[in-house]
Amino acid sequence: MFTRRDGALYLEGVRLSDLLTAGIPTPFYLYSLGQLRQNYRAYEDAVAGLPATVAFAIKSNHNPTLLSALREMGAGATVVSRHEVEHAIRLGFDPGKMLLHGNGKTRADLHAALSAGTLISADSEFDLVHIEEAARDQKTTAPVLLRVNPDIDPQVHPYISTGLLDSKFGMPGPVIDGLRLRGTLRTLRHVVVRGLHCHLGSTLRRVQPVADAMRVLLPLVERLRADGHPIDTVDLGGGLDIDYNRRGETLAGPVELVAAVRPDLLAARLRLWLEPGRSLSGNAGALIGRVIGVKHNGRRGFVIVDASMAQLIRPSLYNAYHHIELLEEAATGPPLRCDVVGPICESADFLGKDRDLPLPAEGDGVIVYDAGAYGFVMASRYNLNLLPAEYVVDGAAVRLSRRAETYEDFARTFVDREARSAAVIDREAPSAAVIKGRTGP
Amino acid sequence: MFTRRDGALYLEGVRLSDLLTAGIPTPFYLYSLGQLRQNYRAYEDAVAGLPATVAFAIKSNHNPTLLSALREMGAGATVVSRHEVEHAIRLGFDPGKMLLHGNGKTRADLHAALSAGTLISADSEFDLVHIEEAARDQKTTAPVLLRVNPDIDPQVHPYISTGLLDSKFGMPGPVIDGLRLRGTLRTLRHVVVRGLHCHLGSTLRRVQPVADAMRVLLPLVERLRADGHPIDTVDLGGGLDIDYNRRGETLAGPVELVAAVRPDLLAARLRLWLEPGRSLSGNAGALIGRVIGVKHNGRRGFVIVDASMAQLIRPSLYNAYHHIELLEEAATGPPLRCDVVGPICESADFLGKDRDLPLPAEGDGVIVYDAGAYGFVMASRYNLNLLPAEYVVDGAAVRLSRRAETYEDFARTFVDREARSAAVIDREAPSAAVIKGRTGP
Repeated sequence: MFTRRDGALYLEGVRLSDLLTAGIPTPFYLYSLGQLRQNYRAYEDAVAGLPATVAFAIKSNHNPTLLSALREMGAGATVVSRHEVEHAIRLGFDPGKMLLHGNGKTRADLHAALSAGTLISADSEFDLVHIEEAARDQKTTAPVLLRVNPDIDPQVHPYISTGLLDSKFGMPGPVIDGLRLRGTLRTLRHVVVRGLHCHLGSTLRRVQPVADAMRVLLPLVERLRADGHPIDTVDLGGGLDIDYNRRGETLAGPVELVAAVRPDLLAARLRLWLEPGRSLSGNAGALIGRVIGVKHNGRRGFVIVDASMAQLIRPSLYNAYHHIELLEEAATGPPLRCDVVGPICESADFLGKDRDLPLPAEGDGVIVYDAGAYGFVMASRYNLNLLPAEYVVDGAAVRLSRRAETYEDFARTFVDREARSAAVIDREAPSAAVIKGRTGP
Repeated sequence: MFTRRDGALYLEGVRLSDLLTAGIPTPFYLYSLGQLRQNYRAYEDAVAGLPATVAFAIKSNHNPTLLSALREMGAGATVVSRHEVEHAIRLGFDPGKMLLHGNGKTRADLHAALSAGTLISADSEFDLVHIEEAARDQKTTAPVLLRVNPDIDPQVHPYISTGLLDSKFGMPGPVIDGLRLRGTLRTLRHVVVRGLHCHLGSTLRRVQPVADAMRVLLPLVERLRADGHPIDTVDLGGGLDIDYNRRGETLAGPVELVAAVRPDLLAARLRLWLEPGRSLSGNAGALIGRVIGVKHNGRRGFVIVDASMAQLIRPSLYNAYHHIELLEEAATGPPLRCDVVGPICESADFLGKDRDLPLPAEGDGVIVYDAGAYGFVMASRYNLNLLPAEYVVDGAAVRLSRRAETYEDFARTFVDREARSAAVIDREAPSAAVIKGRTGP
């Protein structure tokens, strides 16, 4: 959806440097509804002819305008905490298309999901017990998928690999197939096991590991059905990669993913759930900043911009590549070999290393592509870079979706600057140990 | 300040499990004013007899109660952005004891510092020019330190090493000594060069690199004085490590640091600035969570807690060790070899690997030590784990300093959930290109 004409970068109908000329403070996130919708349609097309739910992983991007657009197209929502449950419900998602995940669901998370009426993935034996107890407390029945750890290596960064036994996620196939768990399942009165779930990790570039995982799941489906559980669903997670390098590489997409498992799903009469995050939102978002200055330290050139690891931590946390360009590249001259770094006071603050950019001037606009997934959602206020604004491009129009934070937003939760308020606990108070009970929300 | 009695962990007079019994939601940060004050007094003692300013690096911890306590003891503040300037000024810090740092100061940062009247560290030649222009615009004169990059390896994690030429920080000695910069300095009418600044990095365990840096600075001091600049200050940064392993290791402290440079400072008649962050706030803070459950995946045991990388990213970002214990360790039995992980849906979410803990039960309290520096300030809302509360222990009393965020805090900046508000830019509007001008705060 990005095009360059006469050196100027456009997103849909909008020349991006116009946003800076208009005086919008940088850095900010910018999203394309057109790209997001195109990405969602690719999933719709891929699952055509199958009973399927495409439940966007809102941990990758919780922007309300983007979520509303996906919900309007029919997407469900994969949520991982009680506040994500609340967020999705407030934005109108159908609880029947929602699924709560997580290796460490709290009782509060479970109660939120049960109150909303979502599907729940059970990550472990203790999680199953917690789900049973929460459902019993609410006098309801929890529809549950069992998360399987298939011990398959997706060959991605260890921080986003989730399907090996070294990982904290899921239960190994032999555990689910084992007598103890099957015995436990028979005793649960407030849980209905509806299917299995498996997620291998993120930035998958091939679908073979997913097909391999399906082969692990199928015998378990048969075993659970034989035990009397009404298994009708398999959730194969998300995790497809996107073309971060922007060199036009051909990566496996939703069509390849679904084709690899379609015959098995049809033969076993299973509904498919998918939980794409990155492959829906990633290339629909970018981080926009301005150049503050250029310096050289003898060994290395630096383009210093006002965007940083505070807004986008993926480069330093995962050593992730994000393509970076100037908004206006009319400049000729030889490119500058440089690190693109932010203003945060530590060396972890880089957006790109060893890049070649046209020599920029102060104030020039810079785009960090493919920041629509795991961008804003992981942002911090480090160095008191308060959370940035988010803008949405829809055709020829640009709208402010979420405003930047102000100092007042930041200071809003301060209770006691001088340590003089009433104590929660005071061991020297007249009545000995005064415990004031529950504090905070 | 932490003591264990009959298996129970106390901070000053407070048994920490009482906080959980009192119903305080986890996770939360907990700080000790006693430890913070003790750490500050160690710096006061170390600089006795020298003209000196100890300016706390508030990027390491911006909790208002802690900052107020340091300010009351006489500390200054090292700030790195306009919002940090604003925060310190609102909390009553003396601008004469404040210093603005940063390799990428924006014009807004500089104007905030100049309006407040702080010292400013000039990181680069372009930064010097920006400072000159901002001071000219404000019809004032900026007192400036020049940041020197001494090309000295402090032998710490590359993400927090800042004194090598590969780093984005400062100007190499030969640049400052060179004719071009010295010529530039002569032309500046709104900048007074008052000294030099150098910061090698963080988690320093030896002071020799700082003494080596001092040897790089001294000839530059003489050169600049010969050029007529009123050099009276050297800022040697911060960066001393703390005993994260909690094995009672002897690390270089403020006394060793100052002793290593005291004769040079006195001989050259220089005021010392120090910018400690971690060594003041680090061991004065901890992250407290509760156990959600325990699981085993065949190869590896996991203790799953409700604290996570969303509150404390240091373990995954820097591979940093933080000591972890249960609040109550009365349990006997053999320890469990485990990873301590949070509920965030990715494998980067760990707080400790390969630890030995007494086998815990659901709800047991867990402490992650030494989280007072680069903890809350780097926190994100990842997975919609909203920002946690901060409590402060002062002797026998525990007070709420900052409350936990609510969903309403999170949703407060939403402007346009349905993409139906007025456009900032609309290329298809009747009047052709409508640009509404500056938007956001």
